[in-house]
Amino acid sequence: MAIQCAIIGGSGYTGGELLRILSTHPGVEITCVTSRKYAGMPISALFPSLRGIVDINFEDYSPESLKERAQIAFTAVPHQAAMPVVRELLDAGLKVIDLSADFRLHDADVYENWYGEHSQKELLERAVYGLPEIYREKIKAAELVANPGCYPTSAILPLYPILKRGIVDSNGIIIDSKSGVSGAGRTSSSAFGYSEVNEGFKAYKVCEHRHTPEIEQELSMACGAPLTLNFTPHLVPMTRGILTTSYSKLKEDVDEQELIDILRDFYNESPFVRVLDQGLFPDCHNVRGSNFCDIGVRVCKRTNTLILISAIDNLVKGASGQAVQNMNIMEGLDETIGLQSPPLFP
Amino acid sequence: MAIQCAIIGGSGYTGGELLRILSTHPGVEITCVTSRKYAGMPISALFPSLRGIVDINFEDYSPESLKERAQIAFTAVPHQAAMPVVRELLDAGLKVIDLSADFRLHDADVYENWYGEHSQKELLERAVYGLPEIYREKIKAAELVANPGCYPTSAILPLYPILKRGIVDSNGIIIDSKSGVSGAGRTSSSAFGYSEVNEGFKAYKVCEHRHTPEIEQELSMACGAPLTLNFTPHLVPMTRGILTTSYSKLKEDVDEQELIDILRDFYNESPFVRVLDQGLFPDCHNVRGSNFCDIGVRVCKRTNTLILISAIDNLVKGASGQAVQNMNIMEGLDETIGLQSPPLFP
Amino acid sequence: MAIQCAIIGGSGYTGGELLRILSTHPGVEITCVTSRKYAGMPISALFPSLRGIVDINFEDYSPESLKERAQIAFTAVPHQAAMPVVRELLDAGLKVIDLSADFRLHDADVYENWYGEHSQKELLERAVYGLPEIYREKIKAAELVANPGCYPTSAILPLYPILKRGIVDSNGIIIDSKSGVSGAGRTSSSAFGYSEVNEGFKAYKVCEHRHTPEIEQELSMACGAPLTLNFTPHLVPMTRGILTTSYSKLKEDVDEQELIDILRDFYNESPFVRVLDQGLFPDCHNVRGSNFCDIGVRVCKRTNTLILISAIDNLVKGASGQAVQNMNIMEGLDETIGLQSPPLFP
Amino acid sequence: MAIQCAIIGGSGYTGGELLRILSTHPGVEITCVTSRKYAGMPISALFPSLRGIVDINFEDYSPESLKERAQIAFTAVPHQAAMPVVRELLDAGLKVIDLSADFRLHDADVYENWYGEHSQKELLERAVYGLPEIYREKIKAAELVANPGCYPTSAILPLYPILKRGIVDSNGIIIDSKSGVSGAGRTSSSAFGYSEVNEGFKAYKVCEHRHTPEIEQELSMACGAPLTLNFTPHLVPMTRGILTTSYSKLKEDVDEQELIDILRDFYNESPFVRVLDQGLFPDCHNVRGSNFCDIGVRVCKRTNTLILISAIDNLVKGASGQAVQNMNIMEGLDETIGLQSPPLFP
Repeated sequence: MAIQCAIIGGSGYTGGELLRILSTHPGVEITCVTSRKYAGMPISALFPSLRGIVDINFEDYSPESLKERAQIAFTAVPHQAAMPVVRELLDAGLKVIDLSADFRLHDADVYENWYGEHSQKELLERAVYGLPEIYREKIKAAELVANPGCYPTSAILPLYPILKRGIVDSNGIIIDSKSGVSGAGRTSSSAFGYSEVNEGFKAYKVCEHRHTPEIEQELSMACGAPLTLNFTPHLVPMTRGILTTSYSKLKEDVDEQELIDILRDFYNESPFVRVLDQGLFPDCHNVRGSNFCDIGVRVCKRTNTLILISAIDNLVKGASGQAVQNMNIMEGLDETIGLQSPPLFP
Repeated sequence: MAIQCAIIGGSGYTGGELLRILSTHPGVEITCVTSRKYAGMPISALFPSLRGIVDINFEDYSPESLKERAQIAFTAVPHQAAMPVVRELLDAGLKVIDLSADFRLHDADVYENWYGEHSQKELLERAVYGLPEIYREKIKAAELVANPGCYPTSAILPLYPILKRGIVDSNGIIIDSKSGVSGAGRTSSSAFGYSEVNEGFKAYKVCEHRHTPEIEQELSMACGAPLTLNFTPHLVPMTRGILTTSYSKLKEDVDEQELIDILRDFYNESPFVRVLDQGLFPDCHNVRGSNFCDIGVRVCKRTNTLILISAIDNLVKGASGQAVQNMNIMEGLDETIGLQSPPLFP
Repeated sequence: MAIQCAIIGGSGYTGGELLRILSTHPGVEITCVTSRKYAGMPISALFPSLRGIVDINFEDYSPESLKERAQIAFTAVPHQAAMPVVRELLDAGLKVIDLSADFRLHDADVYENWYGEHSQKELLERAVYGLPEIYREKIKAAELVANPGCYPTSAILPLYPILKRGIVDSNGIIIDSKSGVSGAGRTSSSAFGYSEVNEGFKAYKVCEHRHTPEIEQELSMACGAPLTLNFTPHLVPMTRGILTTSYSKLKEDVDEQELIDILRDFYNESPFVRVLDQGLFPDCHNVRGSNFCDIGVRVCKRTNTLILISAIDNLVKGASGQAVQNMNIMEGLDETIGLQSPPLFP
Repeated sequence: MAIQCAIIGGSGYTGGELLRILSTHPGVEITCVTSRKYAGMPISALFPSLRGIVDINFEDYSPESLKERAQIAFTAVPHQAAMPVVRELLDAGLKVIDLSADFRLHDADVYENWYGEHSQKELLERAVYGLPEIYREKIKAAELVANPGCYPTSAILPLYPILKRGIVDSNGIIIDSKSGVSGAGRTSSSAFGYSEVNEGFKAYKVCEHRHTPEIEQELSMACGAPLTLNFTPHLVPMTRGILTTSYSKLKEDVDEQELIDILRDFYNESPFVRVLDQGLFPDCHNVRGSNFCDIGVRVCKRTNTLILISAIDNLVKGASGQAVQNMNIMEGLDETIGLQSPPLFP
């Protein structure tokens, strides 16, 4: 019998991406898609690409009505707005996969430093950080999964196994990330207008992006001690994709093939991580539309630096694809179901 | 049992797109992918997006060896080069779907006027023009299907039912098409270099594009008499997609909803044609990566002109997706199998 | 002595483009740039590209204060809003070049059909349509110049001389235009967000774009009798540029070189019109950032159709560059001053 | 009297950019543009944007014939090919500005490690590194100027004054650069085809790009001791622009405004360097088509890291604009002549 799913806040890009993926997922039925702004309107009015594929209307959010209609909910509303919704859905007996930042940070103080007040602190302990490649076992049993941020996904996957092995200095890590514009959401901000972004390239929120503590939390777990690092996001004139280049100091003499083997070993059971052969590096266009994270490895002998490069589709492995992967795991399905379409190149 | 497929000439974009689509097609096994230039090389070396998905090597073309290994072949080699290959494959007992122009024109003289000498004229009669929405029944029984060109697909689908009904003047039709750059293939021509194309827009091959006779052939069939028309292709700085805007003179007083109904009626059994509601018009991004053809209708009362606008993905409905649709029909499968992934928006 | 110029409504793209051009114009001093929204803010806060080049602040609009500070004003405010401003500036003794649509249409009824009420009808007679290649003499003496729309500029320049000579049928002209996104202005509409426009292509306002009557007015003048035509704009994923492809029926047997000669003859004294050699066609990237209009000519003998293709930069020849050209003429300067920078390719 | 200039190797993007800039330079006459491949062809056949602006033909390279026709030559041929040409031109009595890498590195051994054999080592001492903001005085007297690479220009300008003051650790500097595609030249390589690059993003030549020793040479000069650093270039789907983000460890407690003041002080006499106000960061679109280098400063107190971000147009300040700036200095002109057009935004 199909798993009944609800999408709370379905009018943005992550909502649309959930619809795109779930609409062909063989084990799922989408029973409810909410949008305060567009309630009553056909989904295909906002996503004409889904015409003939998803033929239901947006509706108002009502936790009561969801009780009978869904077993699991994806919450794709902004941080801060997600907290009470997640609480209500859990109380109504649904499992929840939250795509906001509200339950990603274990430490409420850290959350409040970067995001603002947290009104559901008691839920933080119940939340599992939804990076399946690292927390698969915990996710199986979770009722609330905090789906990781896009930048953190791209930064943590390559660095985690390396830091866990103590191969690099946990101090002084530099993470230089570049994201496509869809990461800003389906916004009406003129800053993301076509003519403003096209043929431009810039860094933004330099040293103050809110994904910083999330990356630090997970990499601290990897090396077993608190670390701080530098994270600089940049805006790329393309729609989808994140490429993350990280720099860390090697503590031992290790060559590229050994590092590739360590990564491959760590991700042996993780079908969505592709560790590239020596000399090959990822390109965002090779993961577009897919749930893959491609990783390339370079050792710079001249400066004793390890350079790890990863590419994901920010809307898939960086958001909605990872959410579906989490759902599969929570529901006891093969984690690749619904996520097997190859990347769209060119 | 899986249908065994060969792809002849698999290193270009249409070859890659066949691989993308067929690799997740549940009824198919890809047994052979040839490339003169890259024989022996892993396919994923040329298409890193397919790493872990298609794990075989390119091989040399050998019709003999294909006899035992494939029932059906997709030929994705340039026109003129396709002719002898198609002959050999047919002789070896395979069904063939030819993505070149070599078997699209029924009249060898027309072919020779636009393309050059035709060495396999006797095959022209056996070839079925592979536009399933019009020739589905013939395709079912075909051994050789001539897969339509990308521009013709986008031009014929909206106009065919209208011309068949005699609603517009068959003289003076203007077809103004705009194509993404992938239509030029995986070329090393500097004319299609990124910096040459980006932020540019131009018409090309004005009044002399080889898809003109193909469109004329099919629309002449629709209205039952020979017609000539104007076809102007343009190059759009985007990777995938064709938008075709056609202008024709209305012979009778008919309103938009009637025309929409005529089109919907004609394509009633054709799941890949989406005729949009009145007032809505297609956008290439709503069909990207999919086999859909979206059609919008406008009647200009001031000038008594019918404007039909259609959008397809040139690599899918304009090439490889349509080829797989043809294969499904030839093999007695549901024609949508393997082609159900929703468009990738944004 | 420098001509003192004011820009009314300087925060949009046409305002920014006026600043870019005028800041290096040797005969001009920019004395005032107004913006209701940004009054008091440095211009370079909104246009960081002009940092160190234009170092004044936006100010509030006050017609009184302009009397002493400017001889000529460019009004770059939306249509409808422009009317009263133009009146006040004229009353204050300034010459005005209006970049809105408010004074382009000679017939107030036509204006009111397409745009809404006109409150300054008595000014319509005083306004000169600011296409210098056609109305240069009138512009010399004008106090109010209505700067043409971007699409009309691209459509009128190639067709005017041809229609004036009666070479084509004035009925049934099809104008299929394609514009870059900056034509939508510096908008916060989510419809022009990067991820919405990028990798998309569509027609919009099919048969109902407000530039239609403007094109019809001028081409009717050319042929000496009222005409109606079809105008379809499309949105191209690029920032700058318009390419217009027009189709008209030849009334006589004329070849391409003759038509090229007719155009070259007509634009003999017009340095910004470049009529291309036979077989060459325009590309938007060859006029980017410049005031040029490139024109290519094709005769289709098969269908007896004349195809004219033109390219302009919508923000320069389609707006601010043409406005400066008009100013030069009104002030008795060489019309190319300040407009001599070559196009920026690539 | 006009300075007579020759461009050797004028068919690529840097050649075209020299033509664009020099064609409106009031003190210059272009007397000769060579191209082995296109000799005899009008320049505007290859650069239609220059139609009506540059109306001469490409010719064959002949050092003899240049003696009488030019005082100064720009050599825009590939590295290795430039060496003998530069020698011949100097012998013929011309001053030379070489846009290749052949004379940038003072140490022939370093050159040979990264590029291949050097056949004109004795010229290395006569060559001046053409970064006017640092070597203006030497350039005034130079006969041979080695025009800097695009990446080095963007990396050296922000870091030089900081390293000179000893504010950061000269070890462990990370330079993460992102370049538009025109940096690859007007190539026919399929790797730079539109569909390959568009909607992609990747790092390339990781730890092995040839601009590394050039950056190290100049930054070693700044701090007075040899340093090694990490340089990673990335390819951005845009035509023009380089953004460079560098990371270095602060040795002292210094705040952003102090660093801004140090940079502004150092570049006090350098009109093309714009050091942005605190909190502002560069965007490539704000320098497009101009000779500016914009610099932004961020201190990360959490990790004690200095982040410097710079933006240039790779074809202007990163190549041809800087070459013209050098020419102006060598010829005793104001260094901004011919380079005063504001950036083209949007």
